Amino acid sequence: MQQNIYDNPVFFAGYKALRRNDTGLNGALEVPALRAVLPELGGLRVLDLGCGFGDFARFARGAGAVSVVAIDASKSMIAEAAQLTNDPGITYLVNGIEDATFASRSFDLIVSSMALHYVSDYEAAVRRIFRALEPEGAFVFSVEHPICTANPVGWVNGSAGDAQHWPVDRYQDEGKRETNWFVEGVTKFHRTIETYVSTLLAAGFRLDHLGEPRPVEEALAKRPELAKELRRPPILVLGATKMKE
Amino acid sequence: MQQNIYDNPVFFAGYKALRRNDTGLNGALEVPALRAVLPELGGLRVLDLGCGFGDFARFARGAGAVSVVAIDASKSMIAEAAQLTNDPGITYLVNGIEDATFASRSFDLIVSSMALHYVSDYEAAVRRIFRALEPEGAFVFSVEHPICTANPVGWVNGSAGDAQHWPVDRYQDEGKRETNWFVEGVTKFHRTIETYVSTLLAAGFRLDHLGEPRPVEEALAKRPELAKELRRPPILVLGATKMKE
Repeated sequence: MQQNIYDNPVFFAGYKALRRNDTGLNGALEVPALRAVLPELGGLRVLDLGCGFGDFARFARGAGAVSVVAIDASKSMIAEAAQLTNDPGITYLVNGIEDATFASRSFDLIVSSMALHYVSDYEAAVRRIFRALEPEGAFVFSVEHPICTANPVGWVNGSAGDAQHWPVDRYQDEGKRETNWFVEGVTKFHRTIETYVSTLLAAGFRLDHLGEPRPVEEALAKRPELAKELRRPPILVLGATKMKE
Repeated sequence: MQQNIYDNPVFFAGYKALRRNDTGLNGALEVPALRAVLPELGGLRVLDLGCGFGDFARFARGAGAVSVVAIDASKSMIAEAAQLTNDPGITYLVNGIEDATFASRSFDLIVSSMALHYVSDYEAAVRRIFRALEPEGAFVFSVEHPICTANPVGWVNGSAGDAQHWPVDRYQDEGKRETNWFVEGVTKFHRTIETYVSTLLAAGFRLDHLGEPRPVEEALAKRPELAKELRRPPILVLGATKMKE
């Protein structure tokens, strides 16, 4: 298993504060957008790839999922997630998305929230996800938008420190990007929207949803600085159904 | 019918020279990308929305299409297209995409090359296109990429005049954009990738293809300045099939 940035203590402390105080994009934008695309959860066997603190696993169980397998490559995240609940219907595993192989047709829904941009081999992951789903099973995920991962240097600011625009560069140059987020040298992988979508279609998925969510009104009212997220799309949400096998 | 920019003599002369000398993105990128997505043309009844000089209509007939209806809002374009061929299987009509209503199920393939970003009501156009297609008929089109239409101010250049990056702004602010291309005040319409795709899905199309084409190798070798087009995606190509009605 690769070293996981979420096990870096400085990174983890920063990330935990961000999520606890809900000052990131998750509550304002990513969580509502992802949940809006989900099928009815009642009776489903769910797999969560990159589960973090387990928020989605707990939500899915509350909404009637019969079981949730939730994996994350970070020991710190899984330890935190396990502490937050003792639901016997949730299995928490320390496992990287790239290292996990699940039995074929063992899930009705596979979810992944803001994790697949850490995975270098997206195509292999999609193949394993397809295999692990029942026919007509759903795969719903969010990633950092390719417009953001292409050239992750942040907003271009004017002399007064005001954001001028979001700079796009190296869009067709897919692969590793080193970024600074809480700590230096966080590795992410850029790929184009074409790659995100066409890999799903080639694997045998039907595309049901492509979303570039904007902050919800409530969050915009509470945190006016989120209006910046109307100027570029921060997140891409895709929803797909397993068709032919 | 709305005033059409292609009927402005200054614009038309500039555009014609660009196409004749093949110095735009069409030959290097857009034409091969669009044609790669087409079904076999033999025996098909084809509609071309925004046909320009009729290149595609002639190509489709050469590839075995039984008939092509080719419309363009610009009288100058249609006059030029009609001069270039006298194929009785091609019908040229001066008609805006927004003004044309075709009989239901009258085409097997509808193509539109770099035209729908001039159309203000994309959703209405998609509904009419869906209706005009046979079930299992294909709709294949290209538009300026939303990353480019969002904030059409051109590359940000450094002090030496070298391109630094492509500036994205106003992404979620869909609607009219005034740009300068040969002449001032060319009106285009920005919409997000979410809108381009989800409108197709909502109308009853299945998405078969989403492409963000890069210049073909041959064109890159001949025109090194095209390498800039690897830094941002200039064009979006979508391919879809009419499913339920």
